[in-house]
Amino acid sequence: MLTPQENDRLTRVGKGTPMGEAFRRYWIPALLSEELAEPDCPPVRVRLLGEDLVAFRDTNGDAGLVDAFCPHRRAPMFFGRNEECGLRCVYHGWKFDTNGTCVDMPSEPALSSSNGSLFKTKVAIAAYPTFEAGGFVWTYMGPRETIPPPPDYEFVRAPATHRYPSKTLEECNWLQALEGGVDSSHATIMHNMNIGDRSWLHDFEATVPRLDLERTDYGFSYSGVRTLPDHQWVRVYHFVMPTIQMRGTIQGSDLQEGYIPRIDGHLWIPIDDENTWVFNFMYSYDPATPLSHEEALGVETRAGRGPDDLTPDYRAKRNKHNDYLIDRALQKSASFTGIKGVNTQDFAVQEAMGPIVDRSKEHLGTTDRAVITTRQLLLEATRAVERGEMPLGSDPTAARAVRPADHRIACGLDWRVTLRDELIARY
Amino acid sequence: MLTPQENDRLTRVGKGTPMGEAFRRYWIPALLSEELAEPDCPPVRVRLLGEDLVAFRDTNGDAGLVDAFCPHRRAPMFFGRNEECGLRCVYHGWKFDTNGTCVDMPSEPALSSSNGSLFKTKVAIAAYPTFEAGGFVWTYMGPRETIPPPPDYEFVRAPATHRYPSKTLEECNWLQALEGGVDSSHATIMHNMNIGDRSWLHDFEATVPRLDLERTDYGFSYSGVRTLPDHQWVRVYHFVMPTIQMRGTIQGSDLQEGYIPRIDGHLWIPIDDENTWVFNFMYSYDPATPLSHEEALGVETRAGRGPDDLTPDYRAKRNKHNDYLIDRALQKSASFTGIKGVNTQDFAVQEAMGPIVDRSKEHLGTTDRAVITTRQLLLEATRAVERGEMPLGSDPTAARAVRPADHRIACGLDWRVTLRDELIARY
Amino acid sequence: MLTPQENDRLTRVGKGTPMGEAFRRYWIPALLSEELAEPDCPPVRVRLLGEDLVAFRDTNGDAGLVDAFCPHRRAPMFFGRNEECGLRCVYHGWKFDTNGTCVDMPSEPALSSSNGSLFKTKVAIAAYPTFEAGGFVWTYMGPRETIPPPPDYEFVRAPATHRYPSKTLEECNWLQALEGGVDSSHATIMHNMNIGDRSWLHDFEATVPRLDLERTDYGFSYSGVRTLPDHQWVRVYHFVMPTIQMRGTIQGSDLQEGYIPRIDGHLWIPIDDENTWVFNFMYSYDPATPLSHEEALGVETRAGRGPDDLTPDYRAKRNKHNDYLIDRALQKSASFTGIKGVNTQDFAVQEAMGPIVDRSKEHLGTTDRAVITTRQLLLEATRAVERGEMPLGSDPTAARAVRPADHRIACGLDWRVTLRDELIARY
Repeated sequence: MLTPQENDRLTRVGKGTPMGEAFRRYWIPALLSEELAEPDCPPVRVRLLGEDLVAFRDTNGDAGLVDAFCPHRRAPMFFGRNEECGLRCVYHGWKFDTNGTCVDMPSEPALSSSNGSLFKTKVAIAAYPTFEAGGFVWTYMGPRETIPPPPDYEFVRAPATHRYPSKTLEECNWLQALEGGVDSSHATIMHNMNIGDRSWLHDFEATVPRLDLERTDYGFSYSGVRTLPDHQWVRVYHFVMPTIQMRGTIQGSDLQEGYIPRIDGHLWIPIDDENTWVFNFMYSYDPATPLSHEEALGVETRAGRGPDDLTPDYRAKRNKHNDYLIDRALQKSASFTGIKGVNTQDFAVQEAMGPIVDRSKEHLGTTDRAVITTRQLLLEATRAVERGEMPLGSDPTAARAVRPADHRIACGLDWRVTLRDELIARY
Repeated sequence: MLTPQENDRLTRVGKGTPMGEAFRRYWIPALLSEELAEPDCPPVRVRLLGEDLVAFRDTNGDAGLVDAFCPHRRAPMFFGRNEECGLRCVYHGWKFDTNGTCVDMPSEPALSSSNGSLFKTKVAIAAYPTFEAGGFVWTYMGPRETIPPPPDYEFVRAPATHRYPSKTLEECNWLQALEGGVDSSHATIMHNMNIGDRSWLHDFEATVPRLDLERTDYGFSYSGVRTLPDHQWVRVYHFVMPTIQMRGTIQGSDLQEGYIPRIDGHLWIPIDDENTWVFNFMYSYDPATPLSHEEALGVETRAGRGPDDLTPDYRAKRNKHNDYLIDRALQKSASFTGIKGVNTQDFAVQEAMGPIVDRSKEHLGTTDRAVITTRQLLLEATRAVERGEMPLGSDPTAARAVRPADHRIACGLDWRVTLRDELIARY
Repeated sequence: MLTPQENDRLTRVGKGTPMGEAFRRYWIPALLSEELAEPDCPPVRVRLLGEDLVAFRDTNGDAGLVDAFCPHRRAPMFFGRNEECGLRCVYHGWKFDTNGTCVDMPSEPALSSSNGSLFKTKVAIAAYPTFEAGGFVWTYMGPRETIPPPPDYEFVRAPATHRYPSKTLEECNWLQALEGGVDSSHATIMHNMNIGDRSWLHDFEATVPRLDLERTDYGFSYSGVRTLPDHQWVRVYHFVMPTIQMRGTIQGSDLQEGYIPRIDGHLWIPIDDENTWVFNFMYSYDPATPLSHEEALGVETRAGRGPDDLTPDYRAKRNKHNDYLIDRALQKSASFTGIKGVNTQDFAVQEAMGPIVDRSKEHLGTTDRAVITTRQLLLEATRAVERGEMPLGSDPTAARAVRPADHRIACGLDWRVTLRDELIARY
């Protein structure tokens, strides 16, 4: 439970807001690399932290991310012509490169007058730096003097043959989406697709995990250990500030599908206060086992965000406008939600909370510890920025080596010792 | 004509507003019984007086009406699973009965810890009491200590074989809808479907009624007596606070269809400040004559709200988004409006006034007396509640015995004497 | 570049705003004459300067423009019955003529009581004067005591056989639409449909015009003179306050189509702060050469607003909701925009600036002189009205005689002398 003021502080991300300024101290993904398919391809609209931008890939293949409006008369750069290492506004022909520099200004008498030339050098379009890695085009929207080293997480370094990036639009505030991610306690209920035999409650009680949360210099790690008759089941995920979750998926929900040495995760990136891009990653952490496209699409499809589940602009076809195609008969017989797809179930609950959930009306329990810690870390980040400091985890190297886990080990062992090597990134 | 302040006071119905608090001292219908088709059926979204709620029918057949959001983390109860005498939130599995009591909390360690148990007993979901009668699920949204006796009007007591309840969405403030109901003077113009012979004006002048309005302890009764060559035509309707109209329909507009001993009426229930549920009732007041389904559907269809006129969610197919399919040729030749269906004509005029009509720009005439009285009664009700009193008519027994009339009697008789027995409810 | 306060002052047009009051000192077109096809035809919704109105043509053929809501109970006059020299509200039958006078009030006891009669004479519906000319129904929405003489421009006086009026909805503030009109410098870039041979830049540089702007007693005239190897190309357009552009089109973009002795123009009329009617006119200025319907439709189609380009309610089918059907391949090969139709290109740029462009973020150059002057004139008009004076150009006779030009003349001549007669209206 938060005060309305704290809720505002945490959820609003526009320029000048506390959380908006905190977000502007981190590298975040702006779009997928695949959205800028080739040099000189059409520009793409990007809305990020409430700012309207346009992304383009220039003739050299470099990604640019500039103001959505031309500095001359505020014409829309989305209709711009992407040509010869620059994006040309079609209103009066001003042209800008990926740095925002004006490289052509045909409407002004530049050739005949030194003043015209001068004007060109004085005008630039606002541009944010980009860094392309892991299938994402990352950007940093804060002050240039505090720009951190570029993203350097294991999922960013995994070879292209071993990874699969994707994204989905979620129509609510980023924080309630993120909170659904760090909250592992809902999985046994909401994602349970097998309640027909009424044994779910018994299973649930039988497998209540021993939970532990440890703060780190990038956020926190969260472990759940279940003691089963013949082994211990250990799951460790990492929350990396401000909005990354990395988790193991070797076993557990995917157990029956055969061994895929995979690590998964999400980044919940605010489009604005009421819309979120959920960027997803998965990668094979075994260098000897590439992640095939078919395997990746299978995972995406089971999550509810496969190629048949999304429109070309990354919107879910089962969405809040059609009640996620809830099947009330299925809800009676097989699953708590009656909704197809784990991610779709998450979206259903999170979006239907409303655009920004009112956290002053909550009643948190003991299993909400990860949610509570996440909020504390984010509030601390806003205060650090207000003090002029860089917030926790803004230097990506802090999480350079971390890796989550999902393993079964023998009874009696201390997982922190047994799994020590498994928890260190090897890419 | 009202001041803008009075207009606000009368039209706004959110929690804490004067009229909103007045409404919260009366039983009002929340939805139709048919919307909760059977025990453990899917829950139904209900928005009432600006509050988002969810209705469900439990395993015992009892109707529950609870907050739309779970008290734990504000997940949407609409996606809840209706099971074994309770509605279970699908996020973390908390389950609530129709009283709002938490009857299961699997996410918390309830079995192993007394604290867990304790937390379950401390948390409840907001729930309003329900009462099912007359084909409606009624609710009372005010303080429990002032809850009045349940609805006890004749249309509520009429046997199921003799009545027909329905509802339609009206996309404007409840008060302008209600005012259209109590204003009988528009009928000769707006609902006139027979102006082709140009005799309408003559008919109109020939039948100007002698109007009378009498305040009562439930609202007012309004009588119109027309003196015709060979008889008097007496119509008496009742306005029952805060939002019920009961009227006779034996003769008059239905005259040509044969004798149906019917009483009709509406309740205009605010969804929020800009949307209204019009609940409709009709019943045969003759115990010997049931109201057949066919007869009822015929009446509904003539009103413009028959099965072919509405979508499954009770929205009119002829609505403001398609200009009510106005037929301008028909408007030239046959009716003033060119719009099909008496209720559709009402909706066209009332909705197209805008979401909340600006009553400071009105010019009221002598025939607007019922409208004026209605506003006075409602303003008085808001002030009574502000003084800590229960407002006029909040105890439904005040209107227990009332019955409207629509009769023809011999010339020279005093209708108050002649019709005395006809004006007393017999169910 | 303007301050945010100046931007507000210039763009907002509601009642009581500075620019709104300035607009209310000029005759402006309310709708096309063709929208009121014949006497007693259906009424038409008109929204103008943020006010909701209804237009109708009475039995005598006179156009009326009245409040959208009946003064009695604010019922919508759009559903009114247009009959026998008046528009009758269908709620209670009150009827008003084109002057707003109540000519019938059947709901009140007018025949039997002098009070009823009296009430009828006391109530009127708000009505604005109309004047029909040039294919437009003009209105004046300001104080009656300052009403100027009616519109008297040459395009208004051109014979019906020689002119073609039209209109298109533009979904943004009127001023950014107008500014696109007076800004001639974008034409070589944005409307260039022939860039495939890469010679456009050379052509552009080779034909940089000598620009001149002259303030007048109706606004300003703007001339561009290009010195070509064997002649001078002279274009003169007029900006007539507050929102008319008149321009020659004899030569230039239409050169290859053969000689059409045509003058074109636009009026950008605010629907409200965020929507605009662009009224278009064209006429043959040669009395001996009528403008055929086919020729007119050809011009409209090339502009992107032909019969196939618009819906029946004058909306563009290529619009902001479908990105103007931009063809990115065409943008690579043939035109800067990849968008079909000169006017569609204008709309694309202007609408995608957002509802009201933020002029405090602009960087204006030397070619923005017409835009700057337009803003100065409009700001001066708002101040004149605030001083109680009539603003520049509010008397249409000031621009009675003006005519634009688009001519080629021999080298060495002074176009002001050579074209003196061509610049005087002859209708």
